[in-house]
Amino acid sequence: MDNQTFKKRLKGVRKALSALKADCLILTKPANATYLTGFTGHDSWAIVLPKLVMLVTDSRYTEQAADQCRFCRIIERTDSMAQAVADLLKKQRAVKLAAIEQTTSIAAFEGLKKHIACRLNSAIDIVESIRRTKDNEEVHAIRAAGEIAGRVFSKLRTTVRRGMTENELAGFVDFEIRKLGGQSCFETIVAFGADSSRPHHQPGAKKLKKNDAVLVDFGVRYQGYCCDVTRCFSMGTKNRFFERVYAAVEQAQAAALDVIKAGVEIKKVDMAAREVIKKHKLPLYGHGTGHGLGLEVHELPVVSNNIKGRLQAGDVITIEPAVYVPGRLGVRIEDDILVTDDGYVLLTAEV
Amino acid sequence: MDNQTFKKRLKGVRKALSALKADCLILTKPANATYLTGFTGHDSWAIVLPKLVMLVTDSRYTEQAADQCRFCRIIERTDSMAQAVADLLKKQRAVKLAAIEQTTSIAAFEGLKKHIACRLNSAIDIVESIRRTKDNEEVHAIRAAGEIAGRVFSKLRTTVRRGMTENELAGFVDFEIRKLGGQSCFETIVAFGADSSRPHHQPGAKKLKKNDAVLVDFGVRYQGYCCDVTRCFSMGTKNRFFERVYAAVEQAQAAALDVIKAGVEIKKVDMAAREVIKKHKLPLYGHGTGHGLGLEVHELPVVSNNIKGRLQAGDVITIEPAVYVPGRLGVRIEDDILVTDDGYVLLTAEV
Repeated sequence: MDNQTFKKRLKGVRKALSALKADCLILTKPANATYLTGFTGHDSWAIVLPKLVMLVTDSRYTEQAADQCRFCRIIERTDSMAQAVADLLKKQRAVKLAAIEQTTSIAAFEGLKKHIACRLNSAIDIVESIRRTKDNEEVHAIRAAGEIAGRVFSKLRTTVRRGMTENELAGFVDFEIRKLGGQSCFETIVAFGADSSRPHHQPGAKKLKKNDAVLVDFGVRYQGYCCDVTRCFSMGTKNRFFERVYAAVEQAQAAALDVIKAGVEIKKVDMAAREVIKKHKLPLYGHGTGHGLGLEVHELPVVSNNIKGRLQAGDVITIEPAVYVPGRLGVRIEDDILVTDDGYVLLTAEV
Repeated sequence: MDNQTFKKRLKGVRKALSALKADCLILTKPANATYLTGFTGHDSWAIVLPKLVMLVTDSRYTEQAADQCRFCRIIERTDSMAQAVADLLKKQRAVKLAAIEQTTSIAAFEGLKKHIACRLNSAIDIVESIRRTKDNEEVHAIRAAGEIAGRVFSKLRTTVRRGMTENELAGFVDFEIRKLGGQSCFETIVAFGADSSRPHHQPGAKKLKKNDAVLVDFGVRYQGYCCDVTRCFSMGTKNRFFERVYAAVEQAQAAALDVIKAGVEIKKVDMAAREVIKKHKLPLYGHGTGHGLGLEVHELPVVSNNIKGRLQAGDVITIEPAVYVPGRLGVRIEDDILVTDDGYVLLTAEV
């Protein structure tokens, strides 16, 4: 983040704040603090004030903060977070109404209320709404993460063998990501056979057998940004049912991609994918067709059929239709794309 | 978890609830829901009612919940969580006052308030306080996780080479954990040379050099339970400063362990370790000397010098004194122990 990017982001936050008649925003969500300060550690809050941004951290992170935060003031607290933040705000006499993020826990909110001198309201999605639109640098990082994911999956395809466990293969994926300088950004999902019908299966000791369906859902964090991909294949050529389902899901993904461009109603994207699954007389998936991603693996916008709103240029979203047949198999195909004025750009490598 | 364990845990929760005059507890924290239902997925809430426990989940987890939750009723929601929980409680006419965990976000709390028919209060640490005391089965799982950690570190010692990056070595650790059937339970910390003075360093592309200090802090989740260990060594025999600091930290850990038994004031454990560091005229660490662990890697009790309270038999805690010298090195030694009536039992393998 350069100074210009920092200032642009900050301007957006202050505009949203003034609409709420608040003069201060307390950021407790790590990714939001990262977005406005560059800091990637934990247990730290950021405070946006009329003329200043502060990062409130502790001694475990002081050195890291000094390296990462070039445009904000770093405060090393020794008191509790609530006490430290209240004390800092007391010195900012101009602050009359502070807003705190609605993702904050009740405990932190009530703790802060006890100490704070000004009024305190909760506010929803201020930074999340700004984060939704990605700039070139952010898109570049997500694409680089997507390229790592592509290389990892290619290596997986030449490495996977019957007899390997789900747990081992998940470990393999995470290790290959590390070797390429990235980091797994959520718990890698590896599911064999009937396990693949569980959308969020936790890998276990199950061994891979001939003609098993294999589902691998993993994410790479690179330069702070996430990609999120799911790939499915069959261990052998004699799983006709897998092939049939796979073709339907592939077609559903293509149908969703086909309607994507800035200005399109989000629910239309979701419905385009579902129509194909219906036509194939296969069961509809219970989750949405996609989600935004960036600093976090789940961001705005949500892509499902009960969402109001339209796609915007600069949205980065997953498209991940699926079919789950309990007791038999599941197939999900997930790629990440950038929404543009006249369509989309694929950010995850085709394999 | 067998039926007897489930009933015992539930009895404790209902007793705490009745002290608050509440007849229902809404569990939004995943580890607390796990403790009372066995479910290990995400995005699901548990509800403890006078005669029933419910798990409210969605279609991504229905199969998993059916496998894992033997003593509670599983509800697959299609509405929002707030709407679904409010509707379920409406059918429970006996419920007048519900309590919700204070770790819940403001957004979820306010969302639920909009829909719910009965009164709703927030409550702190009800399940956390019960979880603090581990039973034999839980201790057994933590010890098994500790054994895996010991084997992983032994293999690391024979594998680590100059030229490896922090990121690669962190990936190696995670992969070895997987191979042994466990799973990394937090972001593995690997720090070389001066990086090791950052207590929560994020591994990067730095290459290991001769006589570098190496700090590795990692955790294994096994059968749902976590261990948390830190090991330090020097790449070569000519880092005298490392040797001196290491000896001091080792002595500090021994001093803390020496005072541990049920009934001892927690702050005395912290102070025993700090006394040794002071005596060696080395800088004091800014974090606590330890923390409880179990289903989560940070649980009750906190072990630091501003904590009131005493150790109890059944506490499982880390003991992790350290010395950080910015620009030079950091040394932390962390092991996990079970507090007993007459001392402690080490749960992490000596290496």
